[in-house]
Amino acid sequence: MKFTVHRTAFIQYLNDVQRAISSKAALEILSGIKLDLSEDGLTMTGSNSDISIETVISIADENAALNIEKTGSVVLPARFFNEIVKKLPEDSLSVEVNDRFQATIRSGSAEFIINGLDPDDYPHLPEIDSREQLTLPGDVLKQVINQTVIAASKQETRPILTGIHLAIKDGQLLAVATDSHRLSQRKLTLNGDSAADYDIIVPGQSMNELAKMLGDLSEDIEIQISENQILFILGNTSFYSRLLEGNYPDTERLIPQNSTTTLEINAPAFLRAIERASLLSHEGRNNVVKLSMQAGTSQATLYSNSPEVGNVEEELTFNKLEGNDLDISFNPDYMKDALRSFGQSEVTLNFTMPLRPFILVPSEAQGEFIQLITPVRTV
Amino acid sequence: MKFTVHRTAFIQYLNDVQRAISSKAALEILSGIKLDLSEDGLTMTGSNSDISIETVISIADENAALNIEKTGSVVLPARFFNEIVKKLPEDSLSVEVNDRFQATIRSGSAEFIINGLDPDDYPHLPEIDSREQLTLPGDVLKQVINQTVIAASKQETRPILTGIHLAIKDGQLLAVATDSHRLSQRKLTLNGDSAADYDIIVPGQSMNELAKMLGDLSEDIEIQISENQILFILGNTSFYSRLLEGNYPDTERLIPQNSTTTLEINAPAFLRAIERASLLSHEGRNNVVKLSMQAGTSQATLYSNSPEVGNVEEELTFNKLEGNDLDISFNPDYMKDALRSFGQSEVTLNFTMPLRPFILVPSEAQGEFIQLITPVRTV
Repeated sequence: MKFTVHRTAFIQYLNDVQRAISSKAALEILSGIKLDLSEDGLTMTGSNSDISIETVISIADENAALNIEKTGSVVLPARFFNEIVKKLPEDSLSVEVNDRFQATIRSGSAEFIINGLDPDDYPHLPEIDSREQLTLPGDVLKQVINQTVIAASKQETRPILTGIHLAIKDGQLLAVATDSHRLSQRKLTLNGDSAADYDIIVPGQSMNELAKMLGDLSEDIEIQISENQILFILGNTSFYSRLLEGNYPDTERLIPQNSTTTLEINAPAFLRAIERASLLSHEGRNNVVKLSMQAGTSQATLYSNSPEVGNVEEELTFNKLEGNDLDISFNPDYMKDALRSFGQSEVTLNFTMPLRPFILVPSEAQGEFIQLITPVRTV
Repeated sequence: MKFTVHRTAFIQYLNDVQRAISSKAALEILSGIKLDLSEDGLTMTGSNSDISIETVISIADENAALNIEKTGSVVLPARFFNEIVKKLPEDSLSVEVNDRFQATIRSGSAEFIINGLDPDDYPHLPEIDSREQLTLPGDVLKQVINQTVIAASKQETRPILTGIHLAIKDGQLLAVATDSHRLSQRKLTLNGDSAADYDIIVPGQSMNELAKMLGDLSEDIEIQISENQILFILGNTSFYSRLLEGNYPDTERLIPQNSTTTLEINAPAFLRAIERASLLSHEGRNNVVKLSMQAGTSQATLYSNSPEVGNVEEELTFNKLEGNDLDISFNPDYMKDALRSFGQSEVTLNFTMPLRPFILVPSEAQGEFIQLITPVRTV
């Protein structure tokens, strides 16, 4: 195996594949990156127990300027190979592998010889039969992930809650995540004529990695689903994730359908006020802030109090406050995560009672997107 | 006590004082910042067991726009106070302290009340009798610190070696640090007519903090020295450090006076080659690279080898190579630290024998600045 390639372009491809490679891989070979050079291009693969990423540098990619001298395969230590490529002195590098899987990496007057592994020992990628396909623009997919994954559980006590529930039915996508204290739900109408229905749970951590890879591309992403895998195809890159097994709880019934107090407020301004209040709540024993709303006097006030530390009080500026007077207390970190997912827009908060879950929805386009937070007892 | 101040300017002053305050302070009061408001301005003090920093916001500072309503003193929890000030909504803030040392911090519609401590319990700053004074331009002082502190020991096994030795004699400053594997020495002729001699050892960590505060100011820094303290005065800010007690080893005799092999090379280019070689040495069991010099064939080659990982070899491009052929091995991390201290300049390496210390000096202005490295047995 022997090729030369343009270093800067090669690093981009390497970084994508590296996302799937763990430095604490259980199998030595999975700490490696597989290089497979054919007449058409160089295929690189990385994998861990949850995700696998495969990318192809085509001989047609002018930025990469891939020059193939001899086809073949090898598995190289991924982190070390990546560091070497990043530090090489020249714009171009060559890789040559002998039949004992020793790779010689040359650039300018620098020459590295590193020990590789037999590519035949590398696990095969999952096979997905691709009868049905979905497509989504990359930036929309990224938005759906970022809006929902924040509510996925980080704890393995109920593994099913570490995933995002994706239900596709009648050309509609419903994405939900909940850690049982809060919930995020996004609805989306799918384009195209795919008629298949799916009900799957994708690990939140996999979706985080995918979102990072998506960048701000508006290109279409192709999605294929099998019984225990999901595959996202982004141009020359294939991103595989395993699915979580089990039944996702019925979340529809958790979302309140009416409200008795409504507050409309600018999301980033409210976020900054919550950040201030949480400075104090984080110092104290209970991480709680209280929102006190008086529609009559048109006042909304944020409080936090901790006897040993002090207290904070802030009068909020808002667009609209309607309904019953209400004091409600909540974890400010949940509120911060929720508000960040609304970006620069106006947000409407719908409350019922002090200990009943309340929801945040965009003031425009309600119904598409909901963040739900369960309050705590007012202190 | 009550004042208003411009927030952005106040944050700058706070950040300077914060450098002296440890989040793991042994005494609760030392995790606080002392505020002392007089008719002339606001004095803020932070301190730990090694250093103390005092800064004065004068009423004459137009950027700070300090408005004094009532004089007084308090000690506030430093990290928490700093975080609050950073997050406040408006450009201006006010602080009002009652006689139970409770501080009310207001900005826009946000109001924090936090518990402070009695300023009478705050330790007094060291007293320094200032008969003799030295001055150094801030950028020169920063350079002297950064060039030497890299060789100071990070281990407490021989506490004296964690300091920088400063010897002032006959209008000359000699700054030396060594961890017994390497040594940095800088000589400087002092301006002015101070005739006093000093021989002191300043903790390296204190000097690191001072260097960070100095920025790139070329303003004169005033230095005062007492038996167990050193004081640096930078404009409105006073930086105190304790001195280390004990006798510093005689380092003059460690520096070789002649050489039998000389290599002149561009410091940043050599640094990048060392960084490449150390990628491999860091993977292997011995963190060692070998420099092989043949003056006859005008070749200098860098090697590193680790049977389980692989090897690296790089032909160096240099300005000049003279003297005997020589193979010498060393810790590449020491070499990296040393080369970084030469910036963009050309460096001359003077060698004698494979197991004798060698030195790096600037190709211009030799004698002012020396980095010494002890080699290891060639592998």
